[in-house]
Amino acid sequence: MAEIVEAYTSSIGADARLVEYDIQASIAHARMLGRRSIITKKDADLIIRGLEEIADEWLSGEFTLRPELEDVHMNVETRLTAKIGAVAGRLHTARSRNDQIATDTRLYAMSACADAIGSLIRLQSSLLDLAEANASVIMPGYTHLQRAQPVLFAHHLLAYVQMFDRDAQRFAFAHGMMDALPLGAGALAGVPYPIDRQSVADELSVSNVIANSLDAVSDRDFVADYIYAATLAMVHVSRLAEELILWSSAEFAFIRIPDAFATGSSIMPQKKNADVAELARGRTGRTIGGLVNILTTLKGLPLTYNRDLQEDKPALFDTEDVLLPTLEVFAEMLPKVTINADRMAAAAVANYSLATDIADYLAHKGLPFRDAHETVGKLVRLAESKGVELGELPLADYERMSPLFEKDVLKIDAKASVSARDVPGGTAPKRVQSELRRNRKRIQGYLQPVGAQPPVPVSKKGTNSRSAKPRTKKK
Amino acid sequence: MAEIVEAYTSSIGADARLVEYDIQASIAHARMLGRRSIITKKDADLIIRGLEEIADEWLSGEFTLRPELEDVHMNVETRLTAKIGAVAGRLHTARSRNDQIATDTRLYAMSACADAIGSLIRLQSSLLDLAEANASVIMPGYTHLQRAQPVLFAHHLLAYVQMFDRDAQRFAFAHGMMDALPLGAGALAGVPYPIDRQSVADELSVSNVIANSLDAVSDRDFVADYIYAATLAMVHVSRLAEELILWSSAEFAFIRIPDAFATGSSIMPQKKNADVAELARGRTGRTIGGLVNILTTLKGLPLTYNRDLQEDKPALFDTEDVLLPTLEVFAEMLPKVTINADRMAAAAVANYSLATDIADYLAHKGLPFRDAHETVGKLVRLAESKGVELGELPLADYERMSPLFEKDVLKIDAKASVSARDVPGGTAPKRVQSELRRNRKRIQGYLQPVGAQPPVPVSKKGTNSRSAKPRTKKK
Amino acid sequence: MAEIVEAYTSSIGADARLVEYDIQASIAHARMLGRRSIITKKDADLIIRGLEEIADEWLSGEFTLRPELEDVHMNVETRLTAKIGAVAGRLHTARSRNDQIATDTRLYAMSACADAIGSLIRLQSSLLDLAEANASVIMPGYTHLQRAQPVLFAHHLLAYVQMFDRDAQRFAFAHGMMDALPLGAGALAGVPYPIDRQSVADELSVSNVIANSLDAVSDRDFVADYIYAATLAMVHVSRLAEELILWSSAEFAFIRIPDAFATGSSIMPQKKNADVAELARGRTGRTIGGLVNILTTLKGLPLTYNRDLQEDKPALFDTEDVLLPTLEVFAEMLPKVTINADRMAAAAVANYSLATDIADYLAHKGLPFRDAHETVGKLVRLAESKGVELGELPLADYERMSPLFEKDVLKIDAKASVSARDVPGGTAPKRVQSELRRNRKRIQGYLQPVGAQPPVPVSKKGTNSRSAKPRTKKK
Amino acid sequence: MAEIVEAYTSSIGADARLVEYDIQASIAHARMLGRRSIITKKDADLIIRGLEEIADEWLSGEFTLRPELEDVHMNVETRLTAKIGAVAGRLHTARSRNDQIATDTRLYAMSACADAIGSLIRLQSSLLDLAEANASVIMPGYTHLQRAQPVLFAHHLLAYVQMFDRDAQRFAFAHGMMDALPLGAGALAGVPYPIDRQSVADELSVSNVIANSLDAVSDRDFVADYIYAATLAMVHVSRLAEELILWSSAEFAFIRIPDAFATGSSIMPQKKNADVAELARGRTGRTIGGLVNILTTLKGLPLTYNRDLQEDKPALFDTEDVLLPTLEVFAEMLPKVTINADRMAAAAVANYSLATDIADYLAHKGLPFRDAHETVGKLVRLAESKGVELGELPLADYERMSPLFEKDVLKIDAKASVSARDVPGGTAPKRVQSELRRNRKRIQGYLQPVGAQPPVPVSKKGTNSRSAKPRTKKK
Repeated sequence: MAEIVEAYTSSIGADARLVEYDIQASIAHARMLGRRSIITKKDADLIIRGLEEIADEWLSGEFTLRPELEDVHMNVETRLTAKIGAVAGRLHTARSRNDQIATDTRLYAMSACADAIGSLIRLQSSLLDLAEANASVIMPGYTHLQRAQPVLFAHHLLAYVQMFDRDAQRFAFAHGMMDALPLGAGALAGVPYPIDRQSVADELSVSNVIANSLDAVSDRDFVADYIYAATLAMVHVSRLAEELILWSSAEFAFIRIPDAFATGSSIMPQKKNADVAELARGRTGRTIGGLVNILTTLKGLPLTYNRDLQEDKPALFDTEDVLLPTLEVFAEMLPKVTINADRMAAAAVANYSLATDIADYLAHKGLPFRDAHETVGKLVRLAESKGVELGELPLADYERMSPLFEKDVLKIDAKASVSARDVPGGTAPKRVQSELRRNRKRIQGYLQPVGAQPPVPVSKKGTNSRSAKPRTKKK
Repeated sequence: MAEIVEAYTSSIGADARLVEYDIQASIAHARMLGRRSIITKKDADLIIRGLEEIADEWLSGEFTLRPELEDVHMNVETRLTAKIGAVAGRLHTARSRNDQIATDTRLYAMSACADAIGSLIRLQSSLLDLAEANASVIMPGYTHLQRAQPVLFAHHLLAYVQMFDRDAQRFAFAHGMMDALPLGAGALAGVPYPIDRQSVADELSVSNVIANSLDAVSDRDFVADYIYAATLAMVHVSRLAEELILWSSAEFAFIRIPDAFATGSSIMPQKKNADVAELARGRTGRTIGGLVNILTTLKGLPLTYNRDLQEDKPALFDTEDVLLPTLEVFAEMLPKVTINADRMAAAAVANYSLATDIADYLAHKGLPFRDAHETVGKLVRLAESKGVELGELPLADYERMSPLFEKDVLKIDAKASVSARDVPGGTAPKRVQSELRRNRKRIQGYLQPVGAQPPVPVSKKGTNSRSAKPRTKKK
Repeated sequence: MAEIVEAYTSSIGADARLVEYDIQASIAHARMLGRRSIITKKDADLIIRGLEEIADEWLSGEFTLRPELEDVHMNVETRLTAKIGAVAGRLHTARSRNDQIATDTRLYAMSACADAIGSLIRLQSSLLDLAEANASVIMPGYTHLQRAQPVLFAHHLLAYVQMFDRDAQRFAFAHGMMDALPLGAGALAGVPYPIDRQSVADELSVSNVIANSLDAVSDRDFVADYIYAATLAMVHVSRLAEELILWSSAEFAFIRIPDAFATGSSIMPQKKNADVAELARGRTGRTIGGLVNILTTLKGLPLTYNRDLQEDKPALFDTEDVLLPTLEVFAEMLPKVTINADRMAAAAVANYSLATDIADYLAHKGLPFRDAHETVGKLVRLAESKGVELGELPLADYERMSPLFEKDVLKIDAKASVSARDVPGGTAPKRVQSELRRNRKRIQGYLQPVGAQPPVPVSKKGTNSRSAKPRTKKK
Repeated sequence: MAEIVEAYTSSIGADARLVEYDIQASIAHARMLGRRSIITKKDADLIIRGLEEIADEWLSGEFTLRPELEDVHMNVETRLTAKIGAVAGRLHTARSRNDQIATDTRLYAMSACADAIGSLIRLQSSLLDLAEANASVIMPGYTHLQRAQPVLFAHHLLAYVQMFDRDAQRFAFAHGMMDALPLGAGALAGVPYPIDRQSVADELSVSNVIANSLDAVSDRDFVADYIYAATLAMVHVSRLAEELILWSSAEFAFIRIPDAFATGSSIMPQKKNADVAELARGRTGRTIGGLVNILTTLKGLPLTYNRDLQEDKPALFDTEDVLLPTLEVFAEMLPKVTINADRMAAAAVANYSLATDIADYLAHKGLPFRDAHETVGKLVRLAESKGVELGELPLADYERMSPLFEKDVLKIDAKASVSARDVPGGTAPKRVQSELRRNRKRIQGYLQPVGAQPPVPVSKKGTNSRSAKPRTKKK
């Protein structure tokens, strides 16, 4: 093969992340071949021991991939041959690189789902930390970026907890969808040996075997599923990032990004650029692009394996490399954000944000809501013409607008407003407290995805260890 | 408002599809308001009766939307006021257009998921029809669009059944994720009335209420979930479409697209363009674009409702208008495709497609697979140099390559090849038969999504009735 | 053809926009056929007269498209046959629907480019109106959404004039790229008649003929070029939209969106939602999606015409229907925006925004810039600790930081700051004035695209007339 | 800054590609500062000499980037300070990292455009080589992947030459659009020093200075322009790739991919997978994704510099790393492809591909084309019923269909068919010869983009040297 072609077609860069999974799958395959007497027990043991040594060599850095050996499979087999001789050639019985690479990539992606769920839980935990620490802070709720009604800051943060919970459920679903073994599909049609696919699946902690061999080697839906879940999670991060950027502007001045998470200007030391938030927002574009990449690559591809599919891995890895560090850095940053509660509170009642409460006051007294709405509109116009807020109008002005107004209307303030919204999902303090507790408890018992999904092994690792040199779990 | 602005901001075009859901939700809301004595029982009854009449008027075409009334909500309320007077103004108590539109869109999307699942099942059924009718046909299995090994045509079709089953599961999951009620969130913070959200959910056949009011009015994840599921389904269709186009080319000539599904040339009557397949392949791009649209629109959007979100509906409706007709036309077309079994069978054994089987023959006799591989490589080169297929070589040529070859090697043909792949997921006829039966049974009992998802009401409708004037289900 | 297939494959909806161009091209084709004696002069005249009548009938609404006649071409030919009999059949000599539809779409797209340029110029003109009316207003310039340095508001608006100028140049380039005639390519290989392609091009005001017949019928790059130019223009609009939304928030309060361009709340009359800006920002996603659509559709398509290409028109039309109204509504809105100059000015000097100027003051006196930077950092920290702005510090504080400070340092204010940036492209008032004049003049003389592109017929129409029933230009 | 934040925000990986450009720009800036006496001539010389040494150290590998110094600018400045002391701090006078990074990226992108044009020209040259070497080969022309009319293989290849020529023009346009200097914009507002921007531009071989300082630091359109041009070029490659894959299938068997460019199967030596073509097709998805990435990142971004913009470089570099190697490997591969002319020729006349020619025969004799069309349709149906091709029908059969048929109708063969299409852009051999010559000449004189663009310095390098350690051009 020409050198330019070798460089063009090489997958060694991406393959390094798969070494652990490739060896694990080979060990399980060899053990099964021995069990089924497709190769002798002795050959199987030789092969397994050799592979285990190679796994150790990989961890220690002794075994590295050689580009001229094309891919991870040939690298491992070549190393195995060097160790145990021609018997290494029996390992490739009853399999093909097509079902092998599909298996490796699935094992990787399943682990990536577990890591993403773990990181999402840590991020939710941080949001709860910040919410709990500021449980009584009131801020303006916005529609159209206009102040609309007061809400608890904790209630606002809980909206993001909900989003990230949905993201975790998407990863749990994706995990369930990819939890099936391609190995045994051979090149594309199945293999002419009495293999036991389920036992290989069991050894690899995979739940099912894929029901159709052609599908097994040509399906990359699971890569799209991962990237989609990651992309929506990043979209949620980007919404939070946008708000952090707004809130830390001089105009809002609701929060202060901790120094360790902002770049400043040596000349304007008060300036705290929310760089982490801006980068997260920017990198969201990368994941949307990654989703387009995998979907476009799959579109119109005839069965079964085509070399286009080699491109699934860069898309998968790129996306993971955006997602996990983003979730981790936000989880670190959020609890350290400083809140300017006074400024939030003042903004919460400015700009006639209690107008709806006053309309509800009238509606409670029997006025049809549309009429109440109209009456309060007049009241606000009056206040505006006088250059005051509603609470600064004398009672007489209220009474002139409607005989239903009584002295207690003047008691409507931000606290009363939020307390009044005492419905499931509402911003009333006791509802928010209850939601904080519910979510904390949910997270403590780890994620139980809706619909009784098979429990997902939530990763407790701090970051993706797979992007670095992977660790092999010993059996 | 300036006319140019009215035109620019109008959502009336899209809103027409939501009328049914808007009225249903209003009826449930009014009934709850009465039950909770937030409005009088009498007022509630008046409102409900009025709304039911409007639903009838909508079906009969008597009630139509007026653009100058801005949106579906104001159109219905205006009509209601004309019917029952000022009491209509009480309907808007304890709600807002923000939670209303979120509710309408979710109800629509849930129904759209059910329709998609129904159409996917019909398409799977058609694939099974075609597979069963050609159960013994052998075709070449391809990798890299090169003939690799013989497979059953039915086995090939079953790969698509698997893909569309996954798609149905994605829609079932999306359905489960969107199965929660926004109503009661009010403008954004909850409402100051003793509402009973769960009872409204129950009446609307929605399982849960959304746990956070800010999330309720700003979340459009469920639109992305629908579009993602639809996009991947279209990607699968595009793969099938590509194969139909290839197979109906003069070069392959494996199938003939029925006249009713192809355009011809009046001058070349034998020419059957697979237009339906080409358009489906082309329209896949539209759904990928729609996914980018919704994700990009959501990216970086601060909470809660922003007018950008109005764009969720064109994206949702466009995608549905691509997906459902595509699934339906493929379901119609596939069983009518004519198969050229002889040509497929001949192609299946040409180009040394049985070489792997012969290597497996040697491996079965104890040769390490890598060595078996190499030996057969030499055999093929010999055959090639003689310009014959492997089966045309005399036994002596085999024997010269390896002493392990015996007379029975000559019995390896396409049928033997497929039969030998007798493993779960393999192409052996009895395995394929079993898969055909399993899938037929699965479909007959309707889809039971994996992981014990809540049962999804699979739609039995032929096509999307929501895109046309919708029918209101009477309570 | 089955009804479901007819519905699935129909292009009548999109074709309506092409009727004018189809007839124009047919007239030019017929005239050339007559001139070249491929058909008789008499037949040509009959055909031309018939087509001109059909064009009139189309404008008057007398001629409408019938879906059962498949496409625009067959509709026109059928109508022509009804008018002039079998001689109509001679019109299709030396052409095919493949080169016809490519021609129609190019003519449409060329006109769409001219319209886009016209709309971009009107928008630039509005930006200049707003800038000129507020020529001396100073606002904070932002980096990272943090106040950084004062700039003229007019200077800020001129940044958008530059962006939209680039967009116009992209459309001019796209126009130049598509300005070539497919007609004469026949089905794909050219035609066996002595046609004169250039004369047809001339009659249609097209500059060149396409140099390769296969390319002529399979190329849809020009659709991508249009959509790309439109998408980037929408991205620019979305940046401006974001700023309008920010500026009209209570926190910024820099501008007030005119009532005619905002929705309010009947209950909070002071609330002005920047709906137009939000929708424009949201619809940007649609154009990015449209770009993905056309690129994905073209990817991997073998030559020449494939039915997938029918999808080019919805993508093109959708994009145009987003772009033109957006540009028009912004052009209407911008000059009517009210500026809060005082608030902008106050914000421009708050938050130590003049710190860089003071560092430059020191650097001018010979301190290396890095040292000056550091000194001013200390000064700002001092002011911050005292809770004052830099201008509120006594001279003694300055002098303590550096002996280079003299009394004139206290004269540094926003006006001095902007005036000092007196370099090409800088915000100094005289530079901005000069840029306002240059751009006004450029626009008045209409766009002269860079690089001496062939002059583009800038459209002076207010909006796209092509999306409505088109007008035929009579020869 | 926290370590996790440093890792998250670091741009060092991408910055390595910019070192050369950063130093070049600094040298030009320093020289201008000295010329304008903003710093002393002596200081300027010291700085310039120091920078030139750093450039050499970079090339020799002595100078490398240290992540803890944040970015390329601080790395260079720190190194400079180590070399020449505090005077290094004067280099940053009258500039900012904001205009610096914009300048570096533009210089890189301009060079990338030149490289892309060079690679496109080499690819066109290879297409011409292949076409000229097979100038008389006839193949079937396809519509809908159905054989339609015979065309010259060279004519087919020339369609791609046209596409790649348009791509080169897009890069030339993009080059022209980005050919303007940001330096002098400072942080965002211009600088308060009497700088001479044009002289810096001249030294850097940049044509213009950017007319608005805010635009200068926030504009990344040029990155989108590069990626768009690259994406469309990859889409064209993907179309060619699809055809190569089809043509090298057993079913088509039109070409044979040279061994050096295909992977085979050790067991099926005749199998030649068109891996290079498959990977190129797959990687097209990556570039479409990259385009989505940059557009989505820019959408809705307020002025001026935001950290999101740091993501422009990975998008730009990724795209270049896909494009250039793809163009190069295709340029290498194409001339080595083996053509099966006999098989192509046989296919060209099969399936009644000459039917249109026979209709044209009748039309030439005066029959309206529509009637001719219908007559030949009947003739084909007759042939089909007899199981023969048209040329195998006896003259009597022709005569029975129409009295206009005479003996010469039997002379219509593939060669006659292509020769008859003797119009500009047609497939007639002399037209194709002329196009081959025209394109060869165009390429030999290098690309002269349409519309008299400023001449673009076409790169003659074999591949992108910028992705490796860059070479600094000495002044």
